[in-house]
Amino acid sequence: MRENGIRKIWAGGGNVINAWLSIASSLSAELVANQDFDSVCIDLQHGGVDFQASIPMLQAISTTHRTPLVRAPWNEPAIIGKLLDAGAYGVICPMVNSRAECEAFISACRYPPLGSRSSGPHRAVLYGGPDYSAKANETILTLAMVETVQALDNLEAILTTPGLDAVYVGPSDLSLSMGEKPGYDPKYPKVMKAIARIAVEAKRHGVQPCIHVGTTAYALEMFGLGYRLITYAGDYRFLQWSMQRGLAALRSGKIAPDAL
Amino acid sequence: MRENGIRKIWAGGGNVINAWLSIASSLSAELVANQDFDSVCIDLQHGGVDFQASIPMLQAISTTHRTPLVRAPWNEPAIIGKLLDAGAYGVICPMVNSRAECEAFISACRYPPLGSRSSGPHRAVLYGGPDYSAKANETILTLAMVETVQALDNLEAILTTPGLDAVYVGPSDLSLSMGEKPGYDPKYPKVMKAIARIAVEAKRHGVQPCIHVGTTAYALEMFGLGYRLITYAGDYRFLQWSMQRGLAALRSGKIAPDAL
Amino acid sequence: MRENGIRKIWAGGGNVINAWLSIASSLSAELVANQDFDSVCIDLQHGGVDFQASIPMLQAISTTHRTPLVRAPWNEPAIIGKLLDAGAYGVICPMVNSRAECEAFISACRYPPLGSRSSGPHRAVLYGGPDYSAKANETILTLAMVETVQALDNLEAILTTPGLDAVYVGPSDLSLSMGEKPGYDPKYPKVMKAIARIAVEAKRHGVQPCIHVGTTAYALEMFGLGYRLITYAGDYRFLQWSMQRGLAALRSGKIAPDAL
Amino acid sequence: MRENGIRKIWAGGGNVINAWLSIASSLSAELVANQDFDSVCIDLQHGGVDFQASIPMLQAISTTHRTPLVRAPWNEPAIIGKLLDAGAYGVICPMVNSRAECEAFISACRYPPLGSRSSGPHRAVLYGGPDYSAKANETILTLAMVETVQALDNLEAILTTPGLDAVYVGPSDLSLSMGEKPGYDPKYPKVMKAIARIAVEAKRHGVQPCIHVGTTAYALEMFGLGYRLITYAGDYRFLQWSMQRGLAALRSGKIAPDAL
Amino acid sequence: MRENGIRKIWAGGGNVINAWLSIASSLSAELVANQDFDSVCIDLQHGGVDFQASIPMLQAISTTHRTPLVRAPWNEPAIIGKLLDAGAYGVICPMVNSRAECEAFISACRYPPLGSRSSGPHRAVLYGGPDYSAKANETILTLAMVETVQALDNLEAILTTPGLDAVYVGPSDLSLSMGEKPGYDPKYPKVMKAIARIAVEAKRHGVQPCIHVGTTAYALEMFGLGYRLITYAGDYRFLQWSMQRGLAALRSGKIAPDAL
Amino acid sequence: MRENGIRKIWAGGGNVINAWLSIASSLSAELVANQDFDSVCIDLQHGGVDFQASIPMLQAISTTHRTPLVRAPWNEPAIIGKLLDAGAYGVICPMVNSRAECEAFISACRYPPLGSRSSGPHRAVLYGGPDYSAKANETILTLAMVETVQALDNLEAILTTPGLDAVYVGPSDLSLSMGEKPGYDPKYPKVMKAIARIAVEAKRHGVQPCIHVGTTAYALEMFGLGYRLITYAGDYRFLQWSMQRGLAALRSGKIAPDAL
Repeated sequence: MRENGIRKIWAGGGNVINAWLSIASSLSAELVANQDFDSVCIDLQHGGVDFQASIPMLQAISTTHRTPLVRAPWNEPAIIGKLLDAGAYGVICPMVNSRAECEAFISACRYPPLGSRSSGPHRAVLYGGPDYSAKANETILTLAMVETVQALDNLEAILTTPGLDAVYVGPSDLSLSMGEKPGYDPKYPKVMKAIARIAVEAKRHGVQPCIHVGTTAYALEMFGLGYRLITYAGDYRFLQWSMQRGLAALRSGKIAPDAL
Repeated sequence: MRENGIRKIWAGGGNVINAWLSIASSLSAELVANQDFDSVCIDLQHGGVDFQASIPMLQAISTTHRTPLVRAPWNEPAIIGKLLDAGAYGVICPMVNSRAECEAFISACRYPPLGSRSSGPHRAVLYGGPDYSAKANETILTLAMVETVQALDNLEAILTTPGLDAVYVGPSDLSLSMGEKPGYDPKYPKVMKAIARIAVEAKRHGVQPCIHVGTTAYALEMFGLGYRLITYAGDYRFLQWSMQRGLAALRSGKIAPDAL
Repeated sequence: MRENGIRKIWAGGGNVINAWLSIASSLSAELVANQDFDSVCIDLQHGGVDFQASIPMLQAISTTHRTPLVRAPWNEPAIIGKLLDAGAYGVICPMVNSRAECEAFISACRYPPLGSRSSGPHRAVLYGGPDYSAKANETILTLAMVETVQALDNLEAILTTPGLDAVYVGPSDLSLSMGEKPGYDPKYPKVMKAIARIAVEAKRHGVQPCIHVGTTAYALEMFGLGYRLITYAGDYRFLQWSMQRGLAALRSGKIAPDAL
Repeated sequence: MRENGIRKIWAGGGNVINAWLSIASSLSAELVANQDFDSVCIDLQHGGVDFQASIPMLQAISTTHRTPLVRAPWNEPAIIGKLLDAGAYGVICPMVNSRAECEAFISACRYPPLGSRSSGPHRAVLYGGPDYSAKANETILTLAMVETVQALDNLEAILTTPGLDAVYVGPSDLSLSMGEKPGYDPKYPKVMKAIARIAVEAKRHGVQPCIHVGTTAYALEMFGLGYRLITYAGDYRFLQWSMQRGLAALRSGKIAPDAL
Repeated sequence: MRENGIRKIWAGGGNVINAWLSIASSLSAELVANQDFDSVCIDLQHGGVDFQASIPMLQAISTTHRTPLVRAPWNEPAIIGKLLDAGAYGVICPMVNSRAECEAFISACRYPPLGSRSSGPHRAVLYGGPDYSAKANETILTLAMVETVQALDNLEAILTTPGLDAVYVGPSDLSLSMGEKPGYDPKYPKVMKAIARIAVEAKRHGVQPCIHVGTTAYALEMFGLGYRLITYAGDYRFLQWSMQRGLAALRSGKIAPDAL
Repeated sequence: MRENGIRKIWAGGGNVINAWLSIASSLSAELVANQDFDSVCIDLQHGGVDFQASIPMLQAISTTHRTPLVRAPWNEPAIIGKLLDAGAYGVICPMVNSRAECEAFISACRYPPLGSRSSGPHRAVLYGGPDYSAKANETILTLAMVETVQALDNLEAILTTPGLDAVYVGPSDLSLSMGEKPGYDPKYPKVMKAIARIAVEAKRHGVQPCIHVGTTAYALEMFGLGYRLITYAGDYRFLQWSMQRGLAALRSGKIAPDAL
């Protein structure tokens, strides 16, 4: 089976820079997958993307060597199974707030006897190889989102769930759950403290801490805290922010530091 | 009929900053249309977009007050008519190299007796208003692309075609046609000379000169030459260039000037 | 944040006429949104529409000032969240039969601390405005469907659920649940009695009663009973019924009262 | 090969009532095809429909016994061939203004030696039967649109083109071409005179006269003039007009003659 | 209501050969539906197909007399209801492992008082007929998948669930659940024993045993065991296997037994 | 620039086996591209595929090392340019019947100064590499279809067109043009004679002869005649023929030579 590039980077001690796709287009997906990311994740929770549109996006990613990830819309076995059958090499699952929820998530990602995933891969075999069924359990990544106070309360129980590879911090929801405003790159002390704690505890349990950031500054800070995968903004945000910056310059008759 | 925002800006002596859409997504189209552009053009020639996908993109643009434009895939009345029926308020037509080609283009955009456009607007009436049929001829913009040596040779004949509102310079194809390499923002002396000449001659004939640029610097230079509409890069390019810049910083452990 | 037109009408004491979309087309959605309705609802339960198709339909509605609603396919947080992120300004939730189900529904529609909606709006911010996250909880409408005997039994418990804005009667399912035949505009005494009771009890608890009707006669009757929002037939039904009527006339050589 | 229902009706001396589809939805297409029409035409010229979307629409029509027609976007062999391969049983071709244009149209619809259609039917064989290639030339209907003054001038030359089955009058474009306003059911004397003349001359040359109407009254008048196929409004118009009528009643508190 | 072809075959003592669709294309669906199958099932669990794409596929099947089935992605009432509204005449439900799960599945397929299916058929009425609501409960087929050890343990409880028409064995998942490798046409003794037992017990309880096979040999063996419906491979597999066979011959310079 | 695999095989003296895609699905496209073909061609002329659907299909092919080809719907520069921009590495052009038509085709495929292709590659650069614009003219393959008596009459003029890489025989249309029945693998003496002649003359002029076949037997015969690329049936045909063969066996209770 084709190896999982993220596992390889982690095994080598490296950190992963992940891309994020919210726009349902295989053309922009392929453009993003050709940039210098290690992996590319399709967001089916908050992105404008459904299962059908994710198939050509997964194919677009697979024209490169970036590892294809998905964020499932919810902790439900039906859609998790469909996305894995379509060739996702890892699943980020939103709102994993308890041990039971984490176990349900892992079960949906693993074939028996480790879980209850139903067998029927199609694209997954084209992408992964003919030994997909035999090796999927050890190849596919499971990333549980920790993004609520409840999840923080249950952190150790979540982190010790057998089969869990990583936790993925959603800083915006976590801030909201802690009584702060949602948004990128929160600096609220209690949120920062929680983010730091998650990295430490995850490492202690052999689980990889991952997080979503909006800027290079925050990304570097997170790597400093021990995070092993950061998602750097996303297609939608790069498009928005770069146009805002360029237009603000142009409207005021200034030359922007265009990248061309 | 809803007025044409570009005509209004031009009538007021202003310049237009136009957005460019190559990605077939109504979500990214709406995001772009919410930035500080004056108009938004869907590219059906070199973009990954066909007629069917252009309808929701036109709708997405129409959630804002930006003027919706299209670049037709070719100088053909069928697709030009379909795009106008779907509510485009202006058509950029590629490869208009002669007076006859320009007349054919204008004819496709104008109802009789000024042209031969067939009547059957649908979205166009929803967007433009119930008097669409009566006022479309004076509202819809025609923009002929000047992008070859042949077009330069026929420039005056093209510029004096009745019904032509604007010429739109394609600097990449023009460079290629003149024996240079294609690309954004050419600086080849003979190409620059031609670009300057087009602006002068267009102005002399009461036709608006327009051009596609990649950077603010080139945009400002073009405004200085008298260009009245510049297309500033495009969705695909903003996405590509901003990711390249951000990732280059992040990979080298530096903080990029992120826009967040 | 852009205000919710339905809240405004209700605050002014007015009644709302809502449109219904079952056909997965942004073109017909825009056509309908240009008619004299106050709001337009996309039906993801019984309509031929899924999430991906609903995005351009929401965009089409947003070219007008009609308030965009959706009927969720089911009482599930994943799809409710996705539809809200895409810009729906209200959610009609099918089969809310108990207080617990109503609380789950409300929770899916409200950000913490009022609920558990996950943060990540995209189109919603384009449509609602930059203060979307701060004001969504007070702007988005929650409409719980009362359409079974069980819901009638639990009516008070449902109506007093914090955060519930309205109940939406499904007369066809309600009839079926009460042992009658499904269909538009039921006249069965016990069903009529239940419909009347819902309006009275809803009003008493400050919840707006809403209902789906097929004809103007029934609509007027419902307004008389105190209903504050009626959905008038739907795209599919208008298309079917008007063709049936016109063709019946034409086939018998008669002139129909065509609307042209 | 499955017979052409329109040919059969015409052979029996009957008249045809044709439906018109402008909305790119196979669901609404199937709904329309289940009403009491004889044939259903997908409009790829002025409708919001492209080739890809027309395939499931043709399939939807084929769940019934209505004869599937298409209006081609233009007189071009590529798209005419694609639509025939997909199972259209007749092609309405816009803007046939001369004998040469009519011959080109016929040639695109007929296999050698009668024309130059390229062989490669797919759905057409599923729908028509295994002898499709042998019998397509005598089964497929060709309908040339007469909708300009130029076409009127060349009427006899058009009507005598070998292989032409019918002429289809576009009253809106014809009015426009004659200096009047476009729209449904024109009553301008010179337009009416032309419409009457077309019916007479078509009959004289054994070609079936067909026309697009908006109302039953006009339809009956056209049958009286000898027209053998009328297209009665269309999906988009039925939807629009019936909602306008119903809402006007409801807004004024009146009961509309709803069809339920 | 249009009768259910599978029920008719079973009532006549016959066996059913079912087709399987994993490719989201209405064109290939129609091609398959034109082959000599009795029914055609769209796989929304392991196929690359979502609800929106299933509508034109159901329409494509409905151009023929094959009975349209779907495999639901999961035992959830929302999607089951949507697929039935769209005209599916039977639902195969994955992972029915207990009596409670089977009852929930049946409830989602049956209108009150037999179940809790919500009323709102659209295509279903076009396909089934105007008496759809009255007769759907007795016409629609329910097929519960037995594919785990847990389901075997609960077999009698499942088989005696009121309203259950058939059990559908998933041999690949069943093998996996029993500690063997997944795949087509398992020959593991304990799996074969279970498969034989299911046929016997199903028959005893008046439930039809059904199974998925890959080859004619296994199909014939299953008919011999009493299976009354076999799904023969699928679109994806026929495409893959026939190309593999043909190419292997061609690459070695041999003539394959091509079917042309 | 990524090399053209077909050119490499030809340069090494080898023959090419090409796949054919008529079904608009990126999933089946990827399945086919994973079989043992050298190249994969998407058919936009007789297939059920339009430009928009071809993009994810090209991406699906690009997950493998098979060379991506397209058959253009017609000899028109607009669509040829769009397909090349989307990453096609060769274009098969239908109905090239004269030197002028061949020159127009070549011109549409080549950038100035060799042709008139407009510059604006998007996916093409992602797939081909950053030097795409510089090397496209020498990399992209041009294949002109010879499929009429007229083309045979002009064969030498066509074969000597500068920039032509290959001729592609359409045996079905050629048979039809010569007064025979269309179909796969014709054996009519005069057609066979023409097919043999094309191979000889093509070779003499340094142009590669290519042909579409249905069976291995015919393929081997064509290789024997000097053909250097054969298209072996297609997705649609493999699906149809393998199901026909398997079902015929199964219906008669026989074991078919299934490939499993």
